[in-house]
Amino acid sequence: MRKHVRKLKDELVKRGLDAFLAIQNTRYLAGTTAAKAVIVPTDGPPVLICSRLEFDQAKREGWIRDVRAFSRWRAPLRPGERVSFCEPLQLIADCLRELGTRAVGYDRGGKKFVRKLRAAHAASYRELPELMLELRKIKSKEEVTLLQRAAKIAMNGMRCAAESVTVGRTELEVAAEAEREMRIAGSEGTPFPTIVASGRNSWLPHASATRKHLRRGELVVIDFGATWGGYASDMTRTFALSPTKKQLTLIGLVKRAQKAAIGRVRNGAKASNVDKAARIIISRVGYAKFSPHGTGHGVGMEVHEPPGLAPDSKDILRERMVITVEPGIYVPRVGGARWEDMVLVTKKGCKSLTA
Amino acid sequence: MRKHVRKLKDELVKRGLDAFLAIQNTRYLAGTTAAKAVIVPTDGPPVLICSRLEFDQAKREGWIRDVRAFSRWRAPLRPGERVSFCEPLQLIADCLRELGTRAVGYDRGGKKFVRKLRAAHAASYRELPELMLELRKIKSKEEVTLLQRAAKIAMNGMRCAAESVTVGRTELEVAAEAEREMRIAGSEGTPFPTIVASGRNSWLPHASATRKHLRRGELVVIDFGATWGGYASDMTRTFALSPTKKQLTLIGLVKRAQKAAIGRVRNGAKASNVDKAARIIISRVGYAKFSPHGTGHGVGMEVHEPPGLAPDSKDILRERMVITVEPGIYVPRVGGARWEDMVLVTKKGCKSLTA
Repeated sequence: MRKHVRKLKDELVKRGLDAFLAIQNTRYLAGTTAAKAVIVPTDGPPVLICSRLEFDQAKREGWIRDVRAFSRWRAPLRPGERVSFCEPLQLIADCLRELGTRAVGYDRGGKKFVRKLRAAHAASYRELPELMLELRKIKSKEEVTLLQRAAKIAMNGMRCAAESVTVGRTELEVAAEAEREMRIAGSEGTPFPTIVASGRNSWLPHASATRKHLRRGELVVIDFGATWGGYASDMTRTFALSPTKKQLTLIGLVKRAQKAAIGRVRNGAKASNVDKAARIIISRVGYAKFSPHGTGHGVGMEVHEPPGLAPDSKDILRERMVITVEPGIYVPRVGGARWEDMVLVTKKGCKSLTA
Repeated sequence: MRKHVRKLKDELVKRGLDAFLAIQNTRYLAGTTAAKAVIVPTDGPPVLICSRLEFDQAKREGWIRDVRAFSRWRAPLRPGERVSFCEPLQLIADCLRELGTRAVGYDRGGKKFVRKLRAAHAASYRELPELMLELRKIKSKEEVTLLQRAAKIAMNGMRCAAESVTVGRTELEVAAEAEREMRIAGSEGTPFPTIVASGRNSWLPHASATRKHLRRGELVVIDFGATWGGYASDMTRTFALSPTKKQLTLIGLVKRAQKAAIGRVRNGAKASNVDKAARIIISRVGYAKFSPHGTGHGVGMEVHEPPGLAPDSKDILRERMVITVEPGIYVPRVGGARWEDMVLVTKKGCKSLTA
């Protein structure tokens, strides 16, 4: 996390800013979920702003030493406790003033928030949502380790799900068993609602898990992830219960499309070309119209982050990006199939984290 | 959901707006997770904007008939499929233009988003984040039913957690068992990271669940919820493993404080007075300094929504609000205790949804 702050400072200097106010990327910078905001000045150490009730947690989990707490109301304090009795916005403004900031970048905030902030501390404020996303694209060694662990937990969860996929069970039961397995292994939670989509649900790419029972003749798309140290994983497998030939063809197709796409992943590759490699395989059999989503996305603290692997992507893949490769085909009244792995981009290719 | 749109339209008329653009409150208005945006004009039916890949889901889950899909890139379409090949912002702007809107409210959007939107369709745009929150405070009969179901699932989860609280198990194992139980019962997921906080974690109000083993002489704070039909529940119990007298006192205190607070809940009551009733009990024994958070909050589609029950709250409780009452005390090196139930505010008092 220290490294992230260093990288951010370099960017601030380049852009002529003297501080960054993170409202959204707090865990990435501070290493704790307890921060409401993190202020990173170009010079000097960062400041963590938190609610009084999360002060101890911020101190225990995070690495930032300058932790400042607010309480919206006056209240008796514990011996040694230091708290500002004000709105969080006021404490942020006070810190920005104390640091002498005049040009501040920020990652998220509505019009009203920024207007109030400006009234409390006069400075120029620049909305820079893409700055942090840009930094987060390339993963450090430590981040790769965390992502690897999250991926490993998901793999074990998928093994458990595979054992549960039998005729008569509900989608929810399959999800429950996989999630339990991952939780006991240390997952902080699923980074998105677990998908167990069978039969008519399987051709909805973003179905979740319902009380529907699995039946013979259905495809079952299972897509989920775990979270480890704040980092997400994401993988998909498609199972078949006494499938028709056509259904099996779909699974074969997405696997082949995935293989073709993974073959294109390497440092310097255009993300759109990786997408194209998968899309060509699918198009050849006339199924392009059944493949409405991109072939993958970056994964990190959020399960969907840049780069995007899609026809319109401008991204170039770089070493130490972590991405998913997940072609999908959804044919109404036949079934859906998707096959997804997480890979680490390397100099000459990539390394799967989920296989 | 139709009712929500009707209520919103009344508010728009009052404020002289001719449409509302929901980016955040889409499920509340549309009844599906598939909407990227919902446009509600004062006159005429609402429009749902979604990604092409979520079109079928929006149609199947939602009630809005005018569903419009975008795809960021040109692609072959299924027979009968209608898609705009553009950015979602462009499709939103096109709809706003088609509807002839000149004064548009919206619930969330950064400076850049609104600037681009204005460039694509010239109108006056007003950020009104509190408008929807205000509407969401009072629950319809249907919403109360969903909240009741979510609460019931959480109660069963808590029973399961209670059985798991034994010396030697990990916090994560306890969380896993409760979550599995809720999932099988139909929960869409936990509305916030499940808290199983034992020993030194128990005095962090927002701890999560770790690999720490439960030990003799510890308090264990368990706080979680389920989600049903998009609606959250939230409840907390504190367990004790061969506790000291002082630890038992903490549990007794939060229960008494909760009882006092619940006694004040009724239509017309000041939220700050409900908070005060709990705070007085805690203050009498000199523990006010160990009680850093408010006594409760509204629950609905989000687990934390208005009203707030805290010393600085300006909210007045109204019939058919659903709130939590959850005093907490956190004494370093002794333990934390919190007792939380969800109640429905009624004319003369309230009805517990979790007891």
